[in-house]
Amino acid sequence: MPTTELDGFTFACGDTVDSLTVAYRTYGDYTGSNAVLVCHALTGSQHVRGRADGDDRGWWPDIVGPGRPIDTTEYFVVCANVPGSCHGTDGPPADGPGGDPWGTAFPPVTVPDWTRCQRRLLDTLGVDRLHAVVGGSVGGMNALDWARRYPDDVHRIAAVATAPRLDAQCLGLNAIARRAIRGDPNWNDGDYYGGAHPDRGLALARQLGHVMYLSKASMADKFGRRTATTDTALPADPAAEFFATRDVESYLDYQADTFVARFDANSYLYLLRAMDAYDLAAGLPSVADALAAFDGDALVLSFTGDWHFTAAQSATVADAFRAGGAAGVAHHVVDSDYGHDAFLVDSAAVGPPLADFLAAGTDGAAVTDATGGV
Amino acid sequence: MPTTELDGFTFACGDTVDSLTVAYRTYGDYTGSNAVLVCHALTGSQHVRGRADGDDRGWWPDIVGPGRPIDTTEYFVVCANVPGSCHGTDGPPADGPGGDPWGTAFPPVTVPDWTRCQRRLLDTLGVDRLHAVVGGSVGGMNALDWARRYPDDVHRIAAVATAPRLDAQCLGLNAIARRAIRGDPNWNDGDYYGGAHPDRGLALARQLGHVMYLSKASMADKFGRRTATTDTALPADPAAEFFATRDVESYLDYQADTFVARFDANSYLYLLRAMDAYDLAAGLPSVADALAAFDGDALVLSFTGDWHFTAAQSATVADAFRAGGAAGVAHHVVDSDYGHDAFLVDSAAVGPPLADFLAAGTDGAAVTDATGGV
Repeated sequence: MPTTELDGFTFACGDTVDSLTVAYRTYGDYTGSNAVLVCHALTGSQHVRGRADGDDRGWWPDIVGPGRPIDTTEYFVVCANVPGSCHGTDGPPADGPGGDPWGTAFPPVTVPDWTRCQRRLLDTLGVDRLHAVVGGSVGGMNALDWARRYPDDVHRIAAVATAPRLDAQCLGLNAIARRAIRGDPNWNDGDYYGGAHPDRGLALARQLGHVMYLSKASMADKFGRRTATTDTALPADPAAEFFATRDVESYLDYQADTFVARFDANSYLYLLRAMDAYDLAAGLPSVADALAAFDGDALVLSFTGDWHFTAAQSATVADAFRAGGAAGVAHHVVDSDYGHDAFLVDSAAVGPPLADFLAAGTDGAAVTDATGGV
Repeated sequence: MPTTELDGFTFACGDTVDSLTVAYRTYGDYTGSNAVLVCHALTGSQHVRGRADGDDRGWWPDIVGPGRPIDTTEYFVVCANVPGSCHGTDGPPADGPGGDPWGTAFPPVTVPDWTRCQRRLLDTLGVDRLHAVVGGSVGGMNALDWARRYPDDVHRIAAVATAPRLDAQCLGLNAIARRAIRGDPNWNDGDYYGGAHPDRGLALARQLGHVMYLSKASMADKFGRRTATTDTALPADPAAEFFATRDVESYLDYQADTFVARFDANSYLYLLRAMDAYDLAAGLPSVADALAAFDGDALVLSFTGDWHFTAAQSATVADAFRAGGAAGVAHHVVDSDYGHDAFLVDSAAVGPPLADFLAAGTDGAAVTDATGGV
């Protein structure tokens, strides 16, 4: 797994680390004008496609790859694990200067830290200007942040299922998720690496996320009120034996159990805080001001069933790109019941507009614009 | 606080208790034909108006009282705390036969148990036939259950912000809430009455409920992204100090802290399970079959901003009343951003249709019917 060391990386909080390890993947060959940066979502990784050792499929295999909408025979795709995460880039579980895991002594991270880290990684790869930045969810915030921070370094921006900032409902749910982790006695003020991990708290946080990523309609379709069995590490609940366990509970338990095995609780706290804190317009009068220096094409892609990052929020991003003077702007709305997860699972809907946008900007054949009444 | 003892109460699970203590309140005077049963929501109590000792306002003071929409100078209002709860009616924290708290040895409770308990309480009060049953949220399920179980004993049914059964999204969120409680080490398999209570788990469960009861729009209005201070019993989180605490988090923390002081964690588990398990059509082909024997008037009242119990779910209840042959049926939809909480807080919208429905059934002047295109 390729990594690079960024010397003297200073975070937005003011802390500097002597050397920041950044884990990344590239796919395809660089021609000098075909680089596409993909920004991963909250718990994602640099593995857009399967890991180098082939042990899984990655998180966007139907969108990125040879012959895929983001065609790696045509584009040089780069994806880096963000600082604060736990897939190889430095974050709380990584070893700190003293050789022990950083834990909560790792500097707090922000989305702009991710952007600056990506910029420096691209420098090491010899990539000056990007053909495009593409990202979904908080990765979409990351993509939008490129338009604010490095407007001259990117030709096209595709921001998928995202928003300029979280609203109160998402802030509230994320605060509950963090409370679940902090309230787990095994969290131990973030210092748990030598002992039992706060798996129960992290599992709860992740289950809450799962419900946020699905829609009411998709959950009704997928689970209904069907019954199932479940097997968790929680204490038994004899008073519950009279009642059926529901399929949806079994699913959430399974998802949580697999998640805690692959993700770090402190990283989850760090990345949730970065998402909560992000405001594309921070320090400026408006989102349009944040995007004013970007003069390329922008695709804002949203899903009708997404209650986490709504189509209405995406519409405000598209309006801001327009007001800021971007060359072309399209708000492509996908009619989907999948919820927020649609950007990951509804490849048939996401692929064509992304492919055509990369090839031809907002003139791309499959790119529609809801503002135009489509 | 009045209580009654119901001898030999057998629960739906098959367990019988020798004597079930039921705490209730009545307001107004009984004339023989003016009894209105009010069914409380999940964490509600018999105190529709202030407690007898005057220490709070109760949970529906603007709807029930002298000169209020459910006018206690006209109606004899009865409300009982449901079995499994913790406001005086027997449930897990009440003393069991051996003198110690029941804990999880208390029989699992169901909504039909509540209905049968209310029927027996009314027998002790000399009330044969009710003028109306009114309830919101799971109390609305309880009201609907009257139409199924005692169709000849009730003249009018008002089911507010409710559904014939929960959908997968609500089942999932409730399962997460229960997991939060069970996962708190202080829960101790439900046996915590002699020691520390699972306050952290119960607080999380309640916070999740709060987000379910509000709407995305109402949270945006109420909190936005404003910052605040918060003070919780959780361990400090030094890595969070760089970031602002949001008003919404402070609100949720405050609500949770006051809630854990007044509610029992096992009761919360019991009542959530009763709500999850409830299906108005259980054992029957359809909801219409469940309501077929009821031939009075039915008011189904819903709120556009309620994503917990949606207006669409209420529409199916109204349709089922119609198909079942009720005398009059109205689905009164209130345009409201308050979310599920609207039934408690939007008295100006809820009061008039309720008042007119009690007085004149679905012919009441303020009662509208969305099915009729209103």
